[in-house]
Amino acid sequence: MAVKYELIKQCSKTGARAGKLHTPHGTFDTPIFMPVGTQATVKSMSPDELKDMGAGIILSNTYHLFLRPGHSLVKEAGGLHKFMNWDRGILTDSGGFQVFSLGDLRKITEEGVTFRSHIDGSKQFLSPERATEVQMALGADIIMAFDECVPYPADYDYAKKSTERTTRWAQRCKNTLTREDQALFGIVQGGMYKDLRSMSVHDLVKMDFPGYAVGGLSVGEPKDLMYEILEHTVCQLPANKPRYLMGVGTPDCLVEGVLHGIDMFDCVFPTRVARNGTAMTAKGRLVIKNAEYAHDFRPIDEECDCYACRNFSRAYIRHLMRTDEIFGLRLMTTHNLYFLINFMKKMREAILEDSFVEFRSAFIANYKK
Amino acid sequence: MAVKYELIKQCSKTGARAGKLHTPHGTFDTPIFMPVGTQATVKSMSPDELKDMGAGIILSNTYHLFLRPGHSLVKEAGGLHKFMNWDRGILTDSGGFQVFSLGDLRKITEEGVTFRSHIDGSKQFLSPERATEVQMALGADIIMAFDECVPYPADYDYAKKSTERTTRWAQRCKNTLTREDQALFGIVQGGMYKDLRSMSVHDLVKMDFPGYAVGGLSVGEPKDLMYEILEHTVCQLPANKPRYLMGVGTPDCLVEGVLHGIDMFDCVFPTRVARNGTAMTAKGRLVIKNAEYAHDFRPIDEECDCYACRNFSRAYIRHLMRTDEIFGLRLMTTHNLYFLINFMKKMREAILEDSFVEFRSAFIANYKK
Repeated sequence: MAVKYELIKQCSKTGARAGKLHTPHGTFDTPIFMPVGTQATVKSMSPDELKDMGAGIILSNTYHLFLRPGHSLVKEAGGLHKFMNWDRGILTDSGGFQVFSLGDLRKITEEGVTFRSHIDGSKQFLSPERATEVQMALGADIIMAFDECVPYPADYDYAKKSTERTTRWAQRCKNTLTREDQALFGIVQGGMYKDLRSMSVHDLVKMDFPGYAVGGLSVGEPKDLMYEILEHTVCQLPANKPRYLMGVGTPDCLVEGVLHGIDMFDCVFPTRVARNGTAMTAKGRLVIKNAEYAHDFRPIDEECDCYACRNFSRAYIRHLMRTDEIFGLRLMTTHNLYFLINFMKKMREAILEDSFVEFRSAFIANYKK
Repeated sequence: MAVKYELIKQCSKTGARAGKLHTPHGTFDTPIFMPVGTQATVKSMSPDELKDMGAGIILSNTYHLFLRPGHSLVKEAGGLHKFMNWDRGILTDSGGFQVFSLGDLRKITEEGVTFRSHIDGSKQFLSPERATEVQMALGADIIMAFDECVPYPADYDYAKKSTERTTRWAQRCKNTLTREDQALFGIVQGGMYKDLRSMSVHDLVKMDFPGYAVGGLSVGEPKDLMYEILEHTVCQLPANKPRYLMGVGTPDCLVEGVLHGIDMFDCVFPTRVARNGTAMTAKGRLVIKNAEYAHDFRPIDEECDCYACRNFSRAYIRHLMRTDEIFGLRLMTTHNLYFLINFMKKMREAILEDSFVEFRSAFIANYKK
């Protein structure tokens, strides 16, 4: 099996758990945050910088790479790891999320999705088989089933039909995968309906995937509802398989995800807000362009020892961001990713010491949303 | 004296010379290329990356820093070195070049130049005194006299009046400078008129500056004319002082500059064209977005061992540049700066071995403009 989850410690009071994820490109501590490298690069970062900050697995996007530069080229280059010079783990999503986000530009049938490229308007087609083939060409360690992310809000009938189709598609993905060095994860859907979530889990678990993602959360619903669905869903997933919450990356949501037993997370949030000048800290967000930092010669985060915080002041980074300098984007991105990776480490340590409940309380007390 | 030039070897057949430049922030081999860090950052690069590739002195712009973030803030931060975390040499230009480039937005009098900021249209004033005070606040190792870069073409009368004023301004800059850890360089002007160049050199040398720049070249004139004026001018400059050719950075011009006895160069060319996707090599330019490189898995330059060429293919960098990824700009910039810094090293080695004439012939035979 390409990917194996090893449970190291189960929190005695919550669903939180510390583990290890064994992949063909290394073993990584969980819970883990996976930086997003949409187009075969984590925006503004070098692979070495990601390694230096302790990044394990990164995520890349099938939809984007399928359109540009094309999966055949990546395969010709020796696969995504070699193409982008990254020898640690890679997870590719299936392209489903992006294709469904295209709105009027796509058409869904049982067979798959016909859509127009956001780049040149050309007509394209992705199906469970095609998405899996593309991901086989890309060669990530973990690949995802082609699913529909049920939008929020969605009526019960739509959510049910969509979730049932996602399940059928998951089987077709599984039937397509032939590479033994890749692990295909199933994606639990079901919208905000608990019975549909249970149905989705039940049907997917029967197919015995090496890992399970929870999709269709953090799509606009209130956070309390997200947490409720998460709690309902995760506890039904098999304990011996890794669990991945898709598209979640704010500190408060990460804590709640871990609380309910999630092992893996990804989100563009830390890198995207970095480029807009927002730094993440354990106390909340810091908007670096604010006038109050003009003469502030302290680091972004006095508790942080990332490259940006060790070497540069708020005043300098503010100057870089105000003058649209690329190095400003780099420093902000470095800080946010380093912060999140270390935030996950701290949660893991708390779980190992069986003090996760205390960790969570202290976090909530200090964090301003 | 803040800056001292040490002649190590004079080419026996040409004006080319190898030396050392001693500054308060280190000693640097000459001839040297100075990467441009307009806004207190060499676009897309970190200070550590610049050090790793062997950069010695970098250039920063008084005009830009005066407007944003303001020299007072930089002074408050402990000076430019500390502000941007760069402990090697810094040279600041005087702002003259940028101010005069503003065209209709500026007005020149004997006192100085009134101009409108390109950022917010606010009315600003720079004079020899003011430009020097700003540069004292910034704290570079080498600062430049406030001059007018005579445009090309310019009629004789204008060029003469402008050059005479630049000389008077140079004296006022000298009278203003009080910091002993900063070296003020005079700037030779005179347009494309040899007698005016001689006059400028004569008048400035009388003032005994610790170094001399040749300004007003590479401003649109034919290259042969530039080389002719350069040859005429440089040989009149004192041999015991460093000589700096402003705004020159293409390989062919660097070779000719060194040939005539120039020690220091700066130019936005390598970093600017990098961001447009043009790589510099000893054989000429390589436009990475060209279709011919789509499936080319060789490095940008097979003779180069920069970070980009050691780790990434043309196909990957082409993909990054086509998708507007920041890491693409970083890799291209890394390559171009590394190439130029090493190109200068090779010229220096040739001078030390008294084989510069042969180096130049081999370069010309291989290089496509």
